[in-house]
Amino acid sequence: MNQSLLKQNKISRVNRASAFMDGKWIIENNLIDCLECFIEPHDKICIEGNNQKQALLLSEALAKVNIEKINNLHVLQSTVLFPAHMLIFENGIANKIDFSYASVYGTRFAELVQEGKLTINGMHTFLELYSRYFIDLTPRVCLISAEKADVEGNLYTGANTEETPTIIEATAFKDGIVIVEAKEIVKKLPRIDIPSDWVDALVLNRNPSPIKALFTRDPAKISNTKILMAMMVIKGIYGKYGVNRLNHGVGYSTCAIELLLPTYAESLGLKGKICEYMVVNPLPTLIPAIEAGFVKHIVSPGGEVGMNEYVKSRPDVFFTGRDGSLRSNRCYAQMAGLYAIDLFAGATLQVDIYGNSTTITSERMPGFGGAPNFGSNANARRHCSESWLLAGRENKNHFNQIPKGKKLVLQIVETFQPFGIPSFVETLDAFDIQKKMNLPLAPIMIYGEDVTHIVTEEGIANLLLCQTAYEREQAIRCVAGLTPVGLKRDKMIIDELREKRIVTYPEDLDILRESATEDLLAAKSIHDLVKMSNGLYDPPAKFLKKVNESTRYKQ
Amino acid sequence: MNQSLLKQNKISRVNRASAFMDGKWIIENNLIDCLECFIEPHDKICIEGNNQKQALLLSEALAKVNIEKINNLHVLQSTVLFPAHMLIFENGIANKIDFSYASVYGTRFAELVQEGKLTINGMHTFLELYSRYFIDLTPRVCLISAEKADVEGNLYTGANTEETPTIIEATAFKDGIVIVEAKEIVKKLPRIDIPSDWVDALVLNRNPSPIKALFTRDPAKISNTKILMAMMVIKGIYGKYGVNRLNHGVGYSTCAIELLLPTYAESLGLKGKICEYMVVNPLPTLIPAIEAGFVKHIVSPGGEVGMNEYVKSRPDVFFTGRDGSLRSNRCYAQMAGLYAIDLFAGATLQVDIYGNSTTITSERMPGFGGAPNFGSNANARRHCSESWLLAGRENKNHFNQIPKGKKLVLQIVETFQPFGIPSFVETLDAFDIQKKMNLPLAPIMIYGEDVTHIVTEEGIANLLLCQTAYEREQAIRCVAGLTPVGLKRDKMIIDELREKRIVTYPEDLDILRESATEDLLAAKSIHDLVKMSNGLYDPPAKFLKKVNESTRYKQ
Repeated sequence: MNQSLLKQNKISRVNRASAFMDGKWIIENNLIDCLECFIEPHDKICIEGNNQKQALLLSEALAKVNIEKINNLHVLQSTVLFPAHMLIFENGIANKIDFSYASVYGTRFAELVQEGKLTINGMHTFLELYSRYFIDLTPRVCLISAEKADVEGNLYTGANTEETPTIIEATAFKDGIVIVEAKEIVKKLPRIDIPSDWVDALVLNRNPSPIKALFTRDPAKISNTKILMAMMVIKGIYGKYGVNRLNHGVGYSTCAIELLLPTYAESLGLKGKICEYMVVNPLPTLIPAIEAGFVKHIVSPGGEVGMNEYVKSRPDVFFTGRDGSLRSNRCYAQMAGLYAIDLFAGATLQVDIYGNSTTITSERMPGFGGAPNFGSNANARRHCSESWLLAGRENKNHFNQIPKGKKLVLQIVETFQPFGIPSFVETLDAFDIQKKMNLPLAPIMIYGEDVTHIVTEEGIANLLLCQTAYEREQAIRCVAGLTPVGLKRDKMIIDELREKRIVTYPEDLDILRESATEDLLAAKSIHDLVKMSNGLYDPPAKFLKKVNESTRYKQ
Repeated sequence: MNQSLLKQNKISRVNRASAFMDGKWIIENNLIDCLECFIEPHDKICIEGNNQKQALLLSEALAKVNIEKINNLHVLQSTVLFPAHMLIFENGIANKIDFSYASVYGTRFAELVQEGKLTINGMHTFLELYSRYFIDLTPRVCLISAEKADVEGNLYTGANTEETPTIIEATAFKDGIVIVEAKEIVKKLPRIDIPSDWVDALVLNRNPSPIKALFTRDPAKISNTKILMAMMVIKGIYGKYGVNRLNHGVGYSTCAIELLLPTYAESLGLKGKICEYMVVNPLPTLIPAIEAGFVKHIVSPGGEVGMNEYVKSRPDVFFTGRDGSLRSNRCYAQMAGLYAIDLFAGATLQVDIYGNSTTITSERMPGFGGAPNFGSNANARRHCSESWLLAGRENKNHFNQIPKGKKLVLQIVETFQPFGIPSFVETLDAFDIQKKMNLPLAPIMIYGEDVTHIVTEEGIANLLLCQTAYEREQAIRCVAGLTPVGLKRDKMIIDELREKRIVTYPEDLDILRESATEDLLAAKSIHDLVKMSNGLYDPPAKFLKKVNESTRYKQ
């Protein structure tokens, strides 16, 4: 067999590193030496960066390698969340990145670009980045995080399996090098998430791992405005279209919907008709709807702090392993979110008069995460559902006249953000950012053509039904309230738009604004959620502190 | 821990079946009894159906279970290829199906629907079907095929791993039952594709497995017409847009392109500029381009007969395991085909005057397979490439005026099919089929809005550049030759369309029709391919037979 250069190169890296290893295990003090053997300049190096699982020990070591030996790395990392990740660039070890979500570090990325220290090769939605791992961004080395490993190197990734299988497959089966940090070595794993066959090297990570409860929203902080919007969404959209397969974002708006399912939605007779199948992390605010038998099936991109024992008690709802604990998979959940749901409900920071929206504003450039994928119409979808067909029948924006279905994409947003910043703008900040950063395209999260409904505390704009660009613009202005965009609405057209059901106000749905109160919430506090989980939900301590003035601000 | 009903139900099924098993292994003579324990009426049952790997022993056994015990099954099966699969429906064991591709059996499906024996729940593109496995089509039981297993039940799925990991994950992690037929039991597997942890039961399959060389095209059968079209595609499209990441269909048209890469494309100076990254099965006709260093990286949805040893020799190009053999993965390859390629080139049977195309005609209803996924624009794509941006800049069909990129989607089709059937029609047969079968939507493979170029032996129609519906229709008529659709073209507008580069004829590209001969093919026969693979490609015997009159027909 004619061994390729790539295979030979892997063998020589592994041979060099073996001096610092005991079998597959890296001797801890030798970690940096070992990385200097495994990695070569200009490598594409994939750093596992999930929401709640980071290859942090390996990242820290990578930031400390000898820059004379290792440099010009091209980092592939879906989520960049920690200072150690930034040090790899600050220290000059890597100078190129492809990513999906960078949280607060997006802004620092922009500065590094200006300083000439970094090239942003691409910003992606998650599934898109994973897809490129199999084409032109195949990792030469990947740095992975696992909960437990056995001596042979089989891995248990548990509740936060997330993107591990996808990264490892792209690396291991292309003669790349798979390096894993594991928090614990055990004799027998509770279950096997990754076979040892796919792993080249492991190191024990004795550091406690920082995890944040990213998806936990306190019901006590949900404002009446959010409750009003949730009522409109449930009655005016979920009920109307019979939305039974969907994804929720992670803001307070969608949590309000979740907490209204066993109360308001049930009172409308919608149980068994909406929200049975969901793509979401195990959100604590879903506990009441699960316990009420309202939500029946959840596939999760990742886990959530404190939800492990509760998830174990409901394997009928969640995907779990033989050991009973959650098996998440970000890739499959994102796939499901593209092709198998009928609705995406998310929030945004800015919407323009065409319905384009983005969370990227002049203050922040976090990246796209999963939103574009969940919130885009899948042109290749061919199976039908009633809600998809109904949205398609309403759609007046067909390019050609062949009937098709359409994914419902909701942007739920209050007319003003906190501190009085209008959510509606004539032109997105994204266009300024494009110019400033010299980007080929404006960083728009969800394109107007994919958005079907905009929901504010004023009402619902149904963009599907708009037959002209003018109607569409006015529909958006009509729900934009007292923002400058809203004040420019054509008052002569409002009645016509309401008549056509393009604009729907609460009264058009027989919803009394004053009925939107916390009495409708199935749980009013984190304590309630714990109780409804039969004590299995174990929230982080900070959520159980007495609510004080500073935290009582309602979202 | 409050065990859910689903988990309890699995335990009771496994307990019942254990009487017929030896540990995890099903005693072969007890297979039918065993299935009657594992399966219950109304189950969703996923039958592994790849192009080249079928759970055939298990399907045959399922067709023979006692209908009093097992009935009303809902089959999930991506590819339906064998009579045994049909027997499950003919015998009344199952009465519902979700599928992607049914080959010749699509027509029988249509009859079974008419007879009231079958409900087609949905037709899908592959990735879409897999996505639903995680939402509303999660299998209760899956029937899987593996090459080898060890005693513990670890699986080697080898070159045709295809969809195994995806199906098993959706089933195993939702307390479903994973049943595997393995062709061989070995002490130590060459590599582990699936850990035993995810497998519930195995049976030895002693039958030889029928495998067809589905993706092998004999260079000797490529006509000069196909060569002419390939020249136009290479110079007029791949070269123009700098297409470096793409998917090819499996017909003679795209094989002609592959065989022209090291010759014609290289003579145009395109090496290193086009076709370096591909999503395709290991097509024998790619051997010359790989050996010439033209094609550098291939991710494969599945394997191909006879290509195993050649693939092993090029791990730098193909994804392979520790043992050196191909690791295919249909799910990841389809993902890459959606989000990470800049061009899809496929063939079709019918195109209408709007550019809608389909292989579903009144004679056949094979299903969609992967084409809609590969051949659709990914609205959520956010990373840029030059070819994608250029296509986007050309695109006059924007819904709103925000610049975006666009995936290039080619339909390469001769104006007439064999036996003189016109490829171009005013109205697709699909609309008749919709009415006849009472389908909610017409079964269209690729929508006109996704198609960017139609290539025939007449020339190229660039649909991106068309500014009006009339221009678009005329562009299509202008390449439709002597078909009735072509004869209706407006002769007054041809020069204008050529001037605008909407229609490009070979002479507009400085391509001499008479230069399109087999002299340009890098390999002229299967023998040539074997030679260029250094004897590693091992084609099925039928391809090595002397070409006789009946097979010399050129495609």
